[in-house]
Amino acid sequence: MSTTPQTNRQYILKSRPTGPLDHDLFELRTQPLREPEPGEVLVRTLYLSIDPTIRLWLSERPQYMPPIQVGGVVRSGGLGLVVQSRNPSFKPGDLIGGLIGWQDYCVGDPNVLGLRPLPKLPVPPLAFLGPLAATGGLTAYFGLFDIGQPRAGETLVVSGAAGSVGSLVGQMGKMAGLRVVGIAGNDEGCHYVTHELGFDACINYKTEDVKAALARHCPDGIDIDFENVGGPILEAVLERMNPFGRVALCGLISQYDQETPLPGPSSFPMVLMRRLKVQGFLCTDFTARFPEAYARITHWLTAGKLKSKEHIFQGLESAPDALEFIFHGKKVGKLVVKVSDPPAMP
Amino acid sequence: MSTTPQTNRQYILKSRPTGPLDHDLFELRTQPLREPEPGEVLVRTLYLSIDPTIRLWLSERPQYMPPIQVGGVVRSGGLGLVVQSRNPSFKPGDLIGGLIGWQDYCVGDPNVLGLRPLPKLPVPPLAFLGPLAATGGLTAYFGLFDIGQPRAGETLVVSGAAGSVGSLVGQMGKMAGLRVVGIAGNDEGCHYVTHELGFDACINYKTEDVKAALARHCPDGIDIDFENVGGPILEAVLERMNPFGRVALCGLISQYDQETPLPGPSSFPMVLMRRLKVQGFLCTDFTARFPEAYARITHWLTAGKLKSKEHIFQGLESAPDALEFIFHGKKVGKLVVKVSDPPAMP
Repeated sequence: MSTTPQTNRQYILKSRPTGPLDHDLFELRTQPLREPEPGEVLVRTLYLSIDPTIRLWLSERPQYMPPIQVGGVVRSGGLGLVVQSRNPSFKPGDLIGGLIGWQDYCVGDPNVLGLRPLPKLPVPPLAFLGPLAATGGLTAYFGLFDIGQPRAGETLVVSGAAGSVGSLVGQMGKMAGLRVVGIAGNDEGCHYVTHELGFDACINYKTEDVKAALARHCPDGIDIDFENVGGPILEAVLERMNPFGRVALCGLISQYDQETPLPGPSSFPMVLMRRLKVQGFLCTDFTARFPEAYARITHWLTAGKLKSKEHIFQGLESAPDALEFIFHGKKVGKLVVKVSDPPAMP
Repeated sequence: MSTTPQTNRQYILKSRPTGPLDHDLFELRTQPLREPEPGEVLVRTLYLSIDPTIRLWLSERPQYMPPIQVGGVVRSGGLGLVVQSRNPSFKPGDLIGGLIGWQDYCVGDPNVLGLRPLPKLPVPPLAFLGPLAATGGLTAYFGLFDIGQPRAGETLVVSGAAGSVGSLVGQMGKMAGLRVVGIAGNDEGCHYVTHELGFDACINYKTEDVKAALARHCPDGIDIDFENVGGPILEAVLERMNPFGRVALCGLISQYDQETPLPGPSSFPMVLMRRLKVQGFLCTDFTARFPEAYARITHWLTAGKLKSKEHIFQGLESAPDALEFIFHGKKVGKLVVKVSDPPAMP
């Protein structure tokens, strides 16, 4: 399939961030690459998935996984190609997904590394970083349908609307018969979700008064909030929630750059007064039901009912730029770093 | 049954509080009492139920019912006796419950006033202000079992532990096989719930470090929080919640004296990281299932498995004192104002 590589470039976390990201936190080192031992595989990185959660893993805040260790490779989801295998469940040429990390290759026990063969589905490989990814469609699917419990005719607000999760949540919401109002941080994102994805409206929180815009775009109140951002946006949304509304708490991106705890939403009493349900979730809580989600999302993709697009950075060396861009850039769609060429697909 | 009364004393809300309560907010006026018209009843007040929610109704904060009007009678739950009836569903001598208000008598359409005949159950009348009341056992029952979803062996924390709701929540929690840790504002309350009601522990938040005490008393973390108080207490509890924990949000007493919004819990991100469910509720959301709750609670009461006690203020004139006491006094059990003598019970 390919000659055995001798060296491996890896991005190492030099020190933890104390605020907005900074290039000096990461160092690209070239290391000798070891051979796989029995039970192990050697995987070439094709694409890295650049997600807000990486920012959380860089910090020592209480979180849902152990933080990335200082001196360790930066953790990151991605797609890879098996180059060598001494594990009977994997063979050279297999496409895999999992926590590959910011490096050209990874070598180790696939179970320890959390590497999984990609399911055989009639979709392009990048779909496994978007509509069929944990940090994409799987989160959108379980968050909207299981936590949000939508009923046709209700109003859904989704923050981070132009991102990899939010853009899919809104489209699934439209299929469920909801009024869908997005909140995004730039006009390109707002235009994308309203003109290309069918959202009913989208609010640019950087240029609009969010409370006034929510009042205008959600005349019947808000029944479901798919929350990716937190902070003042969540606060404004809570104030406009209808009784018995549901908040699917998926992310709090606005807080990930902060090392100290921030005040919670001052509209928190609305949870009581309006009898809301606010529920945090991770799509990995629903692993047993991934086959169901894969089947439905693949159907929507092949029927052209669910669209996605990628914003691709080129080369492993661009990973820190890509991560900064996700917080401060005009991101639209799924942010990906292409590390090496995938094989030609049949 | 009794001669027709000619006058009625009523507590009128003179102006809205802007902070801690103050006697000058209320004025006791004597008014002529009108006769009931067709469809109406005349009810003599026996007992008033003094609850934290009255403080909320006095303010104009967003809430779950319209605020009490300035110039209007202070809204309050209570028990009464029908003196005259021109409504075929009520007859003189009937015991009724509902939003009687701070007055000696109320007259009007029972449906408009929300007055209901008390169910015929083998319990003393005061049970309908405690274990069988909306602001007592019904809230405890639906909040713990429906929102809290307890499983034997889990740990329950209940704030406002010595109060009318909290004291019942903890006892129901013990029956459900939970470890029960209360939080209360005085040593009398802590002693009552641990020595008389069987709580495993109780923390005095005024004299103890709540975080340290929770760590000591909840060695396996917290699975269910029955929240009556909010503020720093909720914050400390959220930090110690286990993954997939449930917060039954019943009250936020610590905020009811505040006219401006307070910051929400700074540990709010735990809702995401630990995948918690935070759900506000009112027991009136479960009205259709009151018969089930009445039956179970009555069984527990008659079997001696559920205890309650009242703290009784004497006379309508004491109502403002009683309401102040609920926020600042050493309250243990259900706070009641006795307005007139109930009839002798068979």
